[in-house]
Amino acid sequence: MGLIVQKFGGTSVADAQGINRAARRAALARAAGDDVVVVVSARGNLTDELIELARKLSPQPPARELDALLSTGEQQSAALMAMALHEMGVAAESLAGVQIGIRTDGVFTRARIENVDPTRVREVLRAGRVAIVAGFQGADAAGNITTLGRGASDTTAVALAAALGAQMCEIYTDVDGVYTADPRIVPTARRIPVISYDEMLELASLGAGVLHSRSVEIGKKFGVPIHVRSSFTDAPGTLVVQEVQAMEKIHVSGATVTENDAKITLRGVPDQPGIAAEVFDAVGQHNVVVDMIVQPPSRRGKTDMSFTVPKDCVAEALAAAQEIGSRLGAAGVECDERIAKVSVVGVGMRSHTGVAAKMFRALAEAGVNIQIISTSEIKISCVIEQDQAHKALRAVHAAFELDAEPTQT
Amino acid sequence: MGLIVQKFGGTSVADAQGINRAARRAALARAAGDDVVVVVSARGNLTDELIELARKLSPQPPARELDALLSTGEQQSAALMAMALHEMGVAAESLAGVQIGIRTDGVFTRARIENVDPTRVREVLRAGRVAIVAGFQGADAAGNITTLGRGASDTTAVALAAALGAQMCEIYTDVDGVYTADPRIVPTARRIPVISYDEMLELASLGAGVLHSRSVEIGKKFGVPIHVRSSFTDAPGTLVVQEVQAMEKIHVSGATVTENDAKITLRGVPDQPGIAAEVFDAVGQHNVVVDMIVQPPSRRGKTDMSFTVPKDCVAEALAAAQEIGSRLGAAGVECDERIAKVSVVGVGMRSHTGVAAKMFRALAEAGVNIQIISTSEIKISCVIEQDQAHKALRAVHAAFELDAEPTQT
Repeated sequence: MGLIVQKFGGTSVADAQGINRAARRAALARAAGDDVVVVVSARGNLTDELIELARKLSPQPPARELDALLSTGEQQSAALMAMALHEMGVAAESLAGVQIGIRTDGVFTRARIENVDPTRVREVLRAGRVAIVAGFQGADAAGNITTLGRGASDTTAVALAAALGAQMCEIYTDVDGVYTADPRIVPTARRIPVISYDEMLELASLGAGVLHSRSVEIGKKFGVPIHVRSSFTDAPGTLVVQEVQAMEKIHVSGATVTENDAKITLRGVPDQPGIAAEVFDAVGQHNVVVDMIVQPPSRRGKTDMSFTVPKDCVAEALAAAQEIGSRLGAAGVECDERIAKVSVVGVGMRSHTGVAAKMFRALAEAGVNIQIISTSEIKISCVIEQDQAHKALRAVHAAFELDAEPTQT
Repeated sequence: MGLIVQKFGGTSVADAQGINRAARRAALARAAGDDVVVVVSARGNLTDELIELARKLSPQPPARELDALLSTGEQQSAALMAMALHEMGVAAESLAGVQIGIRTDGVFTRARIENVDPTRVREVLRAGRVAIVAGFQGADAAGNITTLGRGASDTTAVALAAALGAQMCEIYTDVDGVYTADPRIVPTARRIPVISYDEMLELASLGAGVLHSRSVEIGKKFGVPIHVRSSFTDAPGTLVVQEVQAMEKIHVSGATVTENDAKITLRGVPDQPGIAAEVFDAVGQHNVVVDMIVQPPSRRGKTDMSFTVPKDCVAEALAAAQEIGSRLGAAGVECDERIAKVSVVGVGMRSHTGVAAKMFRALAEAGVNIQIISTSEIKISCVIEQDQAHKALRAVHAAFELDAEPTQT
């Protein structure tokens, strides 16, 4: 007898039909003899509806109260899923908030997990029941409800799978796996059958959308196999696992484009040691994660410093940049939200040269101008003009022959 | 500096406008220097919508999960109210579930309060904040969310007022006080400015609708003055307090009619000592409260035993009655849902005779047949045919001259 964690996203539990469909999967797994933990998101657009309601009352609602409000969406799904299982003759119990045993820090709306105590979940399993866990939420040391950020029910699922020593964490969603690129933009994109945590991490943080980045980080750290599958079909999906040698033969696994970032530029700041650190410290203190940074060679001791931040943090990042900018005597602070980021990802890059060059050539041939470049061991990203996003992605996808079955050269 | 508890019902917080209106009342009280605890119900019809959703998945959803589901309605209101106050510059913090400190027994959907520990609410107040409490809910010893029954946010408010030693518990609702009868049925009905706990208790348990019975019981036990007021106007409302001598001069304070009960009849049960107890024990074991009971004189050692139960408990009561009926060799079990109960209430009845006679005469003159009668020190109730409910109420209201200002004879 094993233990599996199944997570169902908002589109998978949007209505009674979806909840029943998800419950049947859990019931099947239970019937096969496994202990089953189900993690659920809020139904359909409920979270957005609650945010809209909150905004009517307060344009910037207090974060603690926003968490108290939004966490109810997942709590409703959990209770409803328990009812659906009950109706199928499968004993189940929903858990929410402090009951889950996910202890977080006190950073409301973006809390990080400090510790998972699965005692209560284990008790439910030991009683022969399916444990239905409200995703996306935890509680801080004072017992306040916290949320882990949009899309973080994946993180709930993988963190519980790790703490419980689950054999597998299944993520059921509205697509049938991870693709070499977004099929809505690149019609020739292929499903990737197996991918490494590192590649998935890069793809997730690049907005590939299928998995929440932190869930992949936790999966990697604790070696939890993650199986991304469709709620609606029995298609084989994508398995996310430790890197295996065969993977290195494929230079690039996937390509992405995101439009979630904004570029902030500090014009005419002194080009001296420590300035960059000072700028990014100031931004970081607002809990804003700076992504790409570029600082061109200085002219007359002054330089322009650009960095990208998530669009939903622009207000805070801009405030921080303006504060530090005026302290450093910057000539001005600018913000450009009309950018996109095109990236390629692959563990094979580590041992192969020429990947960056091939990407830049593909973009140049497509007439796309590159504004900022950043690279990691297994990723190359370029900031480009937003209007060219789709053209750029198709050019890169074709250049790396991602539409063909991998030849493993 | 005092402490007041303000409770806002579902119609009072149905939308952003209502929540803002309620928040302004709390802000005013806070500005006047009082510590303020706000108790909120779920928005508008949300509870009914959630019940409907649950029923789609399970015709008889497990009670634990129904409580987990429904409690989210009040949690949403609490968070939204805290946001509205925040926007008005008033610090506030919402509390829900285990955070409230209301410990209940484990009877889901109808839990009873065992203990109120207001430590956390006091901490919020001590920090200079308005405490916004999700009504209707508590938690059992194992930390499961429980609910106190429909309409029980009043009970949450009065129980907290008692535990905190509040000067006043204000119940804001969609009517401007307690009336001598339902004005929709009796257009000449008058608002009652002051009423005793005992009378209010009878009126509440008779479905006068304005206050939840258990809230009045708790108010009486701990001497919490309850002020029933309109959310929408500044009308003076009705004050519910300990009985004062002047009240005794008014024979009847109000009249009600309810259509919430069903009559169950066990035909042909043996007329011997202990049978009644056995029947009602069996029904009571299903947590169904039997209201009125009648057992006519026996014929040939057999009798018919009738009792009324709330309509929403008919299934359970009928099952219990059928079980015990077949054990006792009853000739049959019948259920009549087409009944109504007309009642008059007044502390002055205690010291005055003739109230019952006057009521029966009024009903007889109106051509209304009485099926069951029950009396208490301050109440007389008659079960009648449902079709005659409104006619009966108007007849009784007129007979006791409730439409005239009391003359205090």
